[in-house]
Amino acid sequence: MRILETVSELQQLADAERAAGRRIALVPTMGALHPGHLSLVKEARERADRVWVSIFVNPTQFDDPKDLSAYPRALDADLEACELAGVDVVFRPDAGEMYPSDSQTTVEVGGLCEPLCGLARPGHFRGVTTIVSKLLLAAKPHVAVFGEKDYQQLAVIRRMVRDLGFDVEVVGAATLREADGLAMSSRNANLDPEARRQAVALVRALDAAEAAVIAGETDRDELLALTRAELARAPLACIDYAELCDPDSLAPAPGSLESPALLALAVFFDPGDPDAGSRVRLIDNRVLPVRHNSEDTSS
Amino acid sequence: MRILETVSELQQLADAERAAGRRIALVPTMGALHPGHLSLVKEARERADRVWVSIFVNPTQFDDPKDLSAYPRALDADLEACELAGVDVVFRPDAGEMYPSDSQTTVEVGGLCEPLCGLARPGHFRGVTTIVSKLLLAAKPHVAVFGEKDYQQLAVIRRMVRDLGFDVEVVGAATLREADGLAMSSRNANLDPEARRQAVALVRALDAAEAAVIAGETDRDELLALTRAELARAPLACIDYAELCDPDSLAPAPGSLESPALLALAVFFDPGDPDAGSRVRLIDNRVLPVRHNSEDTSS
Repeated sequence: MRILETVSELQQLADAERAAGRRIALVPTMGALHPGHLSLVKEARERADRVWVSIFVNPTQFDDPKDLSAYPRALDADLEACELAGVDVVFRPDAGEMYPSDSQTTVEVGGLCEPLCGLARPGHFRGVTTIVSKLLLAAKPHVAVFGEKDYQQLAVIRRMVRDLGFDVEVVGAATLREADGLAMSSRNANLDPEARRQAVALVRALDAAEAAVIAGETDRDELLALTRAELARAPLACIDYAELCDPDSLAPAPGSLESPALLALAVFFDPGDPDAGSRVRLIDNRVLPVRHNSEDTSS
Repeated sequence: MRILETVSELQQLADAERAAGRRIALVPTMGALHPGHLSLVKEARERADRVWVSIFVNPTQFDDPKDLSAYPRALDADLEACELAGVDVVFRPDAGEMYPSDSQTTVEVGGLCEPLCGLARPGHFRGVTTIVSKLLLAAKPHVAVFGEKDYQQLAVIRRMVRDLGFDVEVVGAATLREADGLAMSSRNANLDPEARRQAVALVRALDAAEAAVIAGETDRDELLALTRAELARAPLACIDYAELCDPDSLAPAPGSLESPALLALAVFFDPGDPDAGSRVRLIDNRVLPVRHNSEDTSS
């Protein structure tokens, strides 16, 4: 496994691999790798000859400096995990390599960035699309793999790639979950034991909403009330948002759902012990299987 | 000479050329080609095995719809000129190809875009950097050639390429001039004979300022007054801006110049006959050879 730290080295290697007819898959990460990341590596492996993982905690996508400093870092363990997973190249640039001095260029997606995490974290997606552009230009991959846990991020990146014409296939990989259903996230490591126990509320809320939809519920406000009630069973949880949206445009879902809708959650967890640390923000989502109106009328 | 209209065809050809070890040079244009463009083609030819010219009148860089509709178009003559100049590929997409429906992604450079044409034409450079990003992603060139007449545009593109890490060498080519000194521009075709005669005022103003600097003048306001006086000799000219700036940062030059300064001009020309058409905006520039302070003290 090669470990590269500069954009120019990576671009040279990309040119050589491409000239040799080999396909490159890139898995961009912020490190603190968990089995969810390794499932992205596996997905990448099935689609390319070479799997490259980038590890870079991107400062420009953090709207809160405390969140940036608290973000878990585990480089030695990450490199070992990559080696074991058969990763061919790890790209781990420093901040100066990705943001040359006096950098003033940004890549920005409009409408899709506005709701949900865009409202809650100003500038977050501009940081994401800017760094992902740089990583795609550095690695020149044929395929790039992202997790579906970050649903809006995946949608925004797909739109960016389509709009600008990046010659890369964007692949979304299903969310991996802990035994109790909690979506795997590097941030889970920052939950204290009591908050960790209660964090299962997110997936329980998604399950409850899905069950209600399957039972025939199509009223948006009813579904959101039910979701919030489920989250309220976790006393340490503080809801950032719980929204039902169009899965493609992310526009608010209508009052009476007529087609599949994205239920998107972002929840802060206070530490069980107030002195233990700062709060942790978790996200999760599910596309609820509301039957299309047309299916209703044809049945 | 091949003529391609889609991004995917161009990307496939780029991959094939690159796999064969050939270097690609791209000359992005908005068509209405003149000898200035052909000098860019010649510059490109010296630096690559394949010369590709794009012809696309980019709607998003026009802040004024009237300016967009008045922009000269001459596709048949352009194709003939490219063929004669030995161009290998002309890329001439339509607007829908470069801006898929509901496009919402932009590329933007901060500080460098703010003065000069950035002030005068809101959103202009965002349109430029967005389309140039798309063209670079479509053509995957090793080299891209731009004219130095559009000094700020060249500076902004260089900055974008550096900041985002595009793997492309940006080359600036010297401004070509008509016999009387007027900088070649597609827009010159829209000048009526009297305005065309007076348009030489721009280069006369640059010449006058340069001569003053060579004679020892270093006072910014004196140089700008002299520039404006020279432009005032053209009654149809209406100054958009005349500024002295740092050639790298484009920040305003100090009151007493101590190092080379960019003199940048943008001038509207009214039609000699008021019924003849709309006004034409011309730009020109020169880096004035102010001696560095350090040179002064060492002499």
